[in-house]
Amino acid sequence: MLKSALTATLLAGVAATALSPTAPLAAKEGMFTPDQLPEIAADLRDTGLEISPEALSDLTGFPMGAIVSLGGCSASFVSPAGLVVTNHHCARGSVQYNSTAENNYLENGFLAKAKRDELQAAPGSRIYVTVAESDVTERMRAGTERLAPNARYDTIEQRMKDIVAECEQDAGHRCLVASFYGGDQYKLIKRLEVRDVRLVYAPADSIGKYGGDVDNWMWPRHTGDFAFYRAYVAPDGSAADYSTANVPFEPEHHLKVSRAGLEDGDFVMAAGYPGSTSRYATLTEVENTFGWQYPTFVGLLNEWIDTIEETAPAGSDARVKYEARLAGLNNYEKNLRGQIEGARRVGLVDRRRARETSLADWIGADRSRAEYASATRDLQALSAEEAAATRQNFWYNYATNSQMLSTAERLYRLAKERQKPDAERDPGFQQRDMTFFRQGLEALDRRYDASVDKAEWLLFLDKYLDQPAASRVPALDRALGLSGTVDHAALERRLDGYYAQTDLDEAQQRLALMEATPAQLEASGDPFMQLAVALYDYERQLETQGEERAGRMLAVRPTYMEAITDWQRSQGVTTYPDANSTLRVTYGKVLGGVPRDGMAYLPFTTLEGITEKDTGVEPFNAPAKQLEAIRKRDYGPYALDAIGSVPVNFLSDLDSTGGNSGSATLNSRAELVGLLFDGTFESVNSDWDFDPRTTRTIHVDTRYMLWVMDKVDGADALIREMDIVE
Amino acid sequence: MLKSALTATLLAGVAATALSPTAPLAAKEGMFTPDQLPEIAADLRDTGLEISPEALSDLTGFPMGAIVSLGGCSASFVSPAGLVVTNHHCARGSVQYNSTAENNYLENGFLAKAKRDELQAAPGSRIYVTVAESDVTERMRAGTERLAPNARYDTIEQRMKDIVAECEQDAGHRCLVASFYGGDQYKLIKRLEVRDVRLVYAPADSIGKYGGDVDNWMWPRHTGDFAFYRAYVAPDGSAADYSTANVPFEPEHHLKVSRAGLEDGDFVMAAGYPGSTSRYATLTEVENTFGWQYPTFVGLLNEWIDTIEETAPAGSDARVKYEARLAGLNNYEKNLRGQIEGARRVGLVDRRRARETSLADWIGADRSRAEYASATRDLQALSAEEAAATRQNFWYNYATNSQMLSTAERLYRLAKERQKPDAERDPGFQQRDMTFFRQGLEALDRRYDASVDKAEWLLFLDKYLDQPAASRVPALDRALGLSGTVDHAALERRLDGYYAQTDLDEAQQRLALMEATPAQLEASGDPFMQLAVALYDYERQLETQGEERAGRMLAVRPTYMEAITDWQRSQGVTTYPDANSTLRVTYGKVLGGVPRDGMAYLPFTTLEGITEKDTGVEPFNAPAKQLEAIRKRDYGPYALDAIGSVPVNFLSDLDSTGGNSGSATLNSRAELVGLLFDGTFESVNSDWDFDPRTTRTIHVDTRYMLWVMDKVDGADALIREMDIVE
Repeated sequence: MLKSALTATLLAGVAATALSPTAPLAAKEGMFTPDQLPEIAADLRDTGLEISPEALSDLTGFPMGAIVSLGGCSASFVSPAGLVVTNHHCARGSVQYNSTAENNYLENGFLAKAKRDELQAAPGSRIYVTVAESDVTERMRAGTERLAPNARYDTIEQRMKDIVAECEQDAGHRCLVASFYGGDQYKLIKRLEVRDVRLVYAPADSIGKYGGDVDNWMWPRHTGDFAFYRAYVAPDGSAADYSTANVPFEPEHHLKVSRAGLEDGDFVMAAGYPGSTSRYATLTEVENTFGWQYPTFVGLLNEWIDTIEETAPAGSDARVKYEARLAGLNNYEKNLRGQIEGARRVGLVDRRRARETSLADWIGADRSRAEYASATRDLQALSAEEAAATRQNFWYNYATNSQMLSTAERLYRLAKERQKPDAERDPGFQQRDMTFFRQGLEALDRRYDASVDKAEWLLFLDKYLDQPAASRVPALDRALGLSGTVDHAALERRLDGYYAQTDLDEAQQRLALMEATPAQLEASGDPFMQLAVALYDYERQLETQGEERAGRMLAVRPTYMEAITDWQRSQGVTTYPDANSTLRVTYGKVLGGVPRDGMAYLPFTTLEGITEKDTGVEPFNAPAKQLEAIRKRDYGPYALDAIGSVPVNFLSDLDSTGGNSGSATLNSRAELVGLLFDGTFESVNSDWDFDPRTTRTIHVDTRYMLWVMDKVDGADALIREMDIVE
Repeated sequence: MLKSALTATLLAGVAATALSPTAPLAAKEGMFTPDQLPEIAADLRDTGLEISPEALSDLTGFPMGAIVSLGGCSASFVSPAGLVVTNHHCARGSVQYNSTAENNYLENGFLAKAKRDELQAAPGSRIYVTVAESDVTERMRAGTERLAPNARYDTIEQRMKDIVAECEQDAGHRCLVASFYGGDQYKLIKRLEVRDVRLVYAPADSIGKYGGDVDNWMWPRHTGDFAFYRAYVAPDGSAADYSTANVPFEPEHHLKVSRAGLEDGDFVMAAGYPGSTSRYATLTEVENTFGWQYPTFVGLLNEWIDTIEETAPAGSDARVKYEARLAGLNNYEKNLRGQIEGARRVGLVDRRRARETSLADWIGADRSRAEYASATRDLQALSAEEAAATRQNFWYNYATNSQMLSTAERLYRLAKERQKPDAERDPGFQQRDMTFFRQGLEALDRRYDASVDKAEWLLFLDKYLDQPAASRVPALDRALGLSGTVDHAALERRLDGYYAQTDLDEAQQRLALMEATPAQLEASGDPFMQLAVALYDYERQLETQGEERAGRMLAVRPTYMEAITDWQRSQGVTTYPDANSTLRVTYGKVLGGVPRDGMAYLPFTTLEGITEKDTGVEPFNAPAKQLEAIRKRDYGPYALDAIGSVPVNFLSDLDSTGGNSGSATLNSRAELVGLLFDGTFESVNSDWDFDPRTTRTIHVDTRYMLWVMDKVDGADALIREMDIVE
């Protein structure tokens, strides 16, 4: 599954490696920003695009104006009345939120009979509609070259906050300053923040999550991974909290939905919000990630999963609270294994080394490129330093990663930040962040169990204790009595005391502490708060060191990316920036592939494949009504002659990653032909290295969506609401 | 892996279901006896055969005279000096037998520099060369219709033994009377029994067993599953035990080896000794097997495997002894899961029901077919009775299946049988069987460990104790004190006593007891022997009941098979008999397939696929020399242009099963183009139901064999010894 939010959370203990170097040389590689599309217009037309590439570059025109973000997932408007289509797995939290034992919508699906029956989405659900974009590079970067690293970092962060604050003067909007090409370019993006999001329709898990974890990242695939939301706003059109007085949002643009025509080899493109890639990572970064970080993390993940499964046995109340976390950990573990395996298969390290050698040769061939040479040298040294820091802090970060301790640390940090004027506070602790901050504290009850949290913490502490003395942190060792030979039973008793004495497991107490002063928290008798206070100075020191490196990175990475861009331009290749959760367009073709020697993926799966897979047991338990319709070959107008059935999922050579989930897949006339929802197991490595031979993206076909709505779920009214085209 | 011997052993507790009904309607289905080939000459020629189908029907002419059996595996002569090629997995026992810590031929491979360096194969290794075949149906069946069931069974068994005894008057030969079409036809097959078998060449496990258990039953495949033996005989050409005076056997025929030409879609055929199929099983037999027997057995296999793995931990001495058994159990468990899954996927039960309905309709359409109707009715009733008996005895059979107890039972049985004249003894206990009987007793030391045997026995007893009272056997319950509530600890102590007191774990003692009288064994203080004596009468009673049912089966199954044959003939289909370890020919094409919706198997794998799979860790640890040759694209004259590399393994739509391993795969001119060694996971169900959509057989390509010999192992002398043709 392609979903970025959880992944980010799980990598809490791992330094971000999102900004980094590679040369894309392959056919359809590229997550282009819309404004790059006119530059590659010729290839877009050659590949089959029928509409104007210039039109695609207008973020608020058609069709890009119909493309929205859910924050972590992508989506699009498909009716003039604010109907939004996305993946089932992006809306499933809202299905779960509304489910009860009597009305189990996960099991039975949910379809609102009329607008008044639509259900409030889960707390925090948002639809972000882009309303403006502008380049703020000059304002962000001016004069920063001259500053010392920490000052450079602080200045850029402060300017970012200032620009966002100005933009958000317009109530109901969220703004962000996004960094491209490692800080070479900055854009301000202004979005309407729709806060009244409602669930309209989601098929049952037995369609929308068909194949479950077994089929996750896999082809052949038969998942009906689609669901519908609707955006609501105040009667005056402004963003508003949920209210019965609200009305459906009327988007300026929405997509037409195609029920015909997509065949093997046809042009397709997807527009969405890919989260993060590392296509330009240095050899050192690649080696550290695949040689140490990922293998270490896979080992930890497996122990972590075992720990949760043992402490929260299947069927227990605790398990219910940790289901989502377990699913996320399993998804991530499978993804990392796939990445490690993929890196080995394609020889990632050797390829990256060869690429750096070629780049260095090109730089060395012309004296005017001396600045590139020194930036490359500096970046390599800095990468090594960064890798060393990652290793140094890895286990400490986990050793302080219990949910209770993290909560205490966030609260104490908030109290400290609140001493400053709002504009000077660190990102995440400003007034604009408080809604999500509060929701996070509230939601903890639904995903916290003391015995599991303690077991996780003990696991992390045990791993920390296995490390050599140089990796140990005196502040932590002192606070937990970890110096000398550690008596494990005594440590466990001490942790028992933490959980017995804490009040942070009560939502009211957590929320109340959002208003506390540092002095009040420092006087707290809560053991987790005492620990948070004891670790605070060390963590700020770590942060300052990280910001110092980041400040230096901000001086060299932009130049390095300019080197890459110039070098690739000399080869006729347009360099796209690494994914950064902003809108991107990827294009290519419906295409099967040869994932391994001796085996081929066919481009489409069929309804009959569902019958073939179905065992009647979750996750292969299609609804009886669906199986009966398949048995009768009741295809309606949705069949594709070439495969003699209704296409269920299809493959393409598009370039996607986590965050792309729910992206509108469009044909050559920008009509919706599917939703992007996953990549094949052989593709997960593409975050680091796009291999055109094996990278394939998985889509649910609109013909299957319409067939399910028509023949299985009776969602006729929704079909009528959309513009269906042949 | 396709290997029949072990499977038969493991199914000890499961009634044989090898003789039974289905209608083959598909393209290349059919394991034809050579004498059937002229009957289907037109289709053979249409499919691409260039030589005369009549020639193929001559068992001692060319090419069939070159085809030999190893007993459980197939093989063929490939030089005038007795060189035999078969699968690596068929010869691996001999590689293992000759391996020492200093000379680990499993790890390094073995290649005899000259004939004098060839190594004795493992004890019991045989090469069977067919010298004559004749129809003995009349002699076998005359007058048996009138007899009562037990008398019919006994008479047929006695005639079989008598015919074999007459035939084996010719020293150095082994004879067998094979039953075809459920006893409708009998053939006497006379074979020269080559007892001096020597290992000539086997690549390392890292080539010959590449992919190991992970890839077993899987495509894509990259296994170099080939090895060479040589047949030796006395200077006068007669079969003889190993002697340095022996000389290579000079076969009348040997195969030419092709190094060119095989392409996708080309005609291929395979000649070998498939072990057992159930294509004509009744609906009742299918339902019992897939509804009860296989699922029950899979459950048991998993517990059995766990028990061995726990009692004989990896690295222990005990594990070495149980490696082969574990591999066999795992292979079988995967096979059964595949069969159950395949039966579900193709809807085996529904297909069989439909077939029986069609047959019944055809029978009912003509009064002259009344005899078929009554035979069908009787067979259905008897199938149900047989199924009930299988269930009734299943757990008892396992509860008496410890290696020590089985040994005691075989020895006591032998003593009893030896009271009769040799000709009257039951098969398996005659003088002709004593060499293998003795070797079995000797070999026990290498695959027996008391703690594992006890753990297995305890597992089986626990399962037996879980059964309802009606399934319990008083003789066993009395002997082991299993009546009333069983005190598990007391039972385990009792078994400990068995293993502490027995002498049967000493080879000398076992061999000595081959000469004991029943009275001596009845007076034995050995607890296993006492138990064997206590169970003897009950087991003979079970046997007599089984023979009574078999006697009735012998009256109805032949008529039922005649009904099938007539019915199929009316549809233009030639009925072939179920596999029975006699020589068969299957033909078809090199062909990929679509094993599942959305996925395809390509017909060839390539050398580059080895590099792609290789992790350096067993079972994906190709030799460095091989990887280097691949990296250099050092293909020699062995490449196939269409795939741009040397083909490693290929798929065909041939019809094969366990026992076919090592079968010569021949092109349209009967030149050797490969060795058959496995089926795909989707094919394992073909023993019951040949599905032309998914049944695919896996072969190692002679071009890969020659490439390995030439570029990796330096087996130039062997290449020169063979007739290589373009």
